[in-house]
Amino acid sequence: MEPFSEVELQLAARNHGMPLEALRYPVTPVGLHYLLTHYDIPAVDPDAFELTIGGAVARPLTLSLDDLRARPAVEVEVTMECAGNGRALLPAPRPLSQPWLAEAVGTAAWTGTPLAPLLAEAGPQESAVEVVFTGLDRGFESGEAQVFERSLPLEEALRDEVLLAYGMNGGPLLPQHGFPLRLVVPGWYGMASVKWLTRITVVDRPFEGYQQRHAYTLRHDEEDAGIPLTWIFPRALMAPPGVPDFPTRERTVASGPCTIEGRAWSGWAPVEAVEFSADAGMTWTEAQLDPPGPRWAWRGWRHEWDATLGEHVLYCRARDAAGNIQPDEGGWNLGGYANNGIQRVPVSVS
Amino acid sequence: MEPFSEVELQLAARNHGMPLEALRYPVTPVGLHYLLTHYDIPAVDPDAFELTIGGAVARPLTLSLDDLRARPAVEVEVTMECAGNGRALLPAPRPLSQPWLAEAVGTAAWTGTPLAPLLAEAGPQESAVEVVFTGLDRGFESGEAQVFERSLPLEEALRDEVLLAYGMNGGPLLPQHGFPLRLVVPGWYGMASVKWLTRITVVDRPFEGYQQRHAYTLRHDEEDAGIPLTWIFPRALMAPPGVPDFPTRERTVASGPCTIEGRAWSGWAPVEAVEFSADAGMTWTEAQLDPPGPRWAWRGWRHEWDATLGEHVLYCRARDAAGNIQPDEGGWNLGGYANNGIQRVPVSVS
Repeated sequence: MEPFSEVELQLAARNHGMPLEALRYPVTPVGLHYLLTHYDIPAVDPDAFELTIGGAVARPLTLSLDDLRARPAVEVEVTMECAGNGRALLPAPRPLSQPWLAEAVGTAAWTGTPLAPLLAEAGPQESAVEVVFTGLDRGFESGEAQVFERSLPLEEALRDEVLLAYGMNGGPLLPQHGFPLRLVVPGWYGMASVKWLTRITVVDRPFEGYQQRHAYTLRHDEEDAGIPLTWIFPRALMAPPGVPDFPTRERTVASGPCTIEGRAWSGWAPVEAVEFSADAGMTWTEAQLDPPGPRWAWRGWRHEWDATLGEHVLYCRARDAAGNIQPDEGGWNLGGYANNGIQRVPVSVS
Repeated sequence: MEPFSEVELQLAARNHGMPLEALRYPVTPVGLHYLLTHYDIPAVDPDAFELTIGGAVARPLTLSLDDLRARPAVEVEVTMECAGNGRALLPAPRPLSQPWLAEAVGTAAWTGTPLAPLLAEAGPQESAVEVVFTGLDRGFESGEAQVFERSLPLEEALRDEVLLAYGMNGGPLLPQHGFPLRLVVPGWYGMASVKWLTRITVVDRPFEGYQQRHAYTLRHDEEDAGIPLTWIFPRALMAPPGVPDFPTRERTVASGPCTIEGRAWSGWAPVEAVEFSADAGMTWTEAQLDPPGPRWAWRGWRHEWDATLGEHVLYCRARDAAGNIQPDEGGWNLGGYANNGIQRVPVSVS
């Protein structure tokens, strides 16, 4: 792995992943959910806060937090993953951005009101094709002053489970997760779930904003038009067994029976199988899956491994019901996105 | 700055600092407080949990969580800082450990029961000199299997404000902050506030454990016996003004009046002054301090800066009532501890 620059370190010191032992929790405790903030966490006065819904609609709306809280509320468990998860594991040249290993994930129980009925009230015009979501966080990228904005095709924005969330894990939404209001788009990479949401704009042509067409696209070079990132590709992770060394994180496991536990998810379709290998991918065994839970949350799995003396590299991989399977290694791309190459956990059994 | 290794990146992806814009909050919101975990976050069953107090005492005690919650409860606001804060800013060769810049800090309102009355009930013997605190987190360091353990001199353990905490910011203690019980030692670097606390042992000779005599000491080479780290040295931080670039974090500020806000703290004595410089330390102005608040929490400060066009490097530094003042640059030491060199924030005014 190429050494990391000061810019990457600055990002890694601010943003944080979910320590993988937290895979033990079906809902990630507050503060352990991954977090990626492009600019600064904005300070928002909830009393002055307004959400506007406008653009190509018949009846533009302006809503306060109280208006939103007075609407029907639902809670949805959602596994969210950063599109850049795995970036630091890609072959060189590594794109200059947040250097995630495999831990940019978490599952929260989001409380909020469904978006679709609000959009229906606003009444998208016949010409409407997409919905643009604008956050209050602002900064510069590639020399351009900007606020964070991302769009969804109209039919995606109208999915039942797309939520305007003002609560998390039974408590209030935290500043770093978008207080007082955020979008939650179950099944899509995290960039779609716009935080500090203040404006929803229905548009009659595809949105060409920076985060839509430049960042957060799969492309091979600067000339490549690219494909905007959408659904999360499948991934299984295990909680590394045994105990770690500080600072190297090298792991020591006691010989004998060892239960390997983890979770797996895919935006494209439900997880159908998880496989485990204790010999660096030479042979694979199907792990035992927990019963299916909420569609948009990860699924638990376990495998009874007989840990024998010596050095091992443990692998796991997921397959979803759409036939997507994790590759051995993720493919290089300009932004370093969607690397769902299989997890490798070296352990020493003694 | 020397490039960072994979080991450092692994640590930075797990542990996290407080994004500096969070200096706006007098009490750091849950999930933004800095976090340093040596090994893995342990899974603890609160119903089976017991705290023992033993060693050189007349009456050893065993307490459940209910026993502890039934005792007198207090809430104390404490600014906690990692002893390794600033490590990544030290000159080469940088010690191989968590590569903090300046953000390994946070202030929480801890709820718990004071330690001193419990120690009095146990009755330290005449020969008692120190108290050892043992956590449930375990792993390896320098090839030695260990649990995290640190001691306090008996007189420090008996300070009124030393707490056995089971709550944080009005809610339960979170797994990553030591659930179900931790020690909180106001004014000392974070390594003293042992998380996942399960055993308290009164001893009649100085504790020689790994974290006491090897790690978390100020020393110049491996032969140096070193000085165990104790009280936090003074530091002032500002919330960097303006807006950042992604990914470089370079900041752009609008010209004209600009309020610089920050906080300052010292374990040794209350903060007495904060100074600000907009010309990289050539000239300094006293910042305006907030009225003194709780002794163990940081103190807010602000300065009205007239931002003029061009490039500037903003500095700030704190002085405490014991006469400690921040140095321009922290001194190199083997473990990379206690670097309280002044913060430097380059900004571009346009």
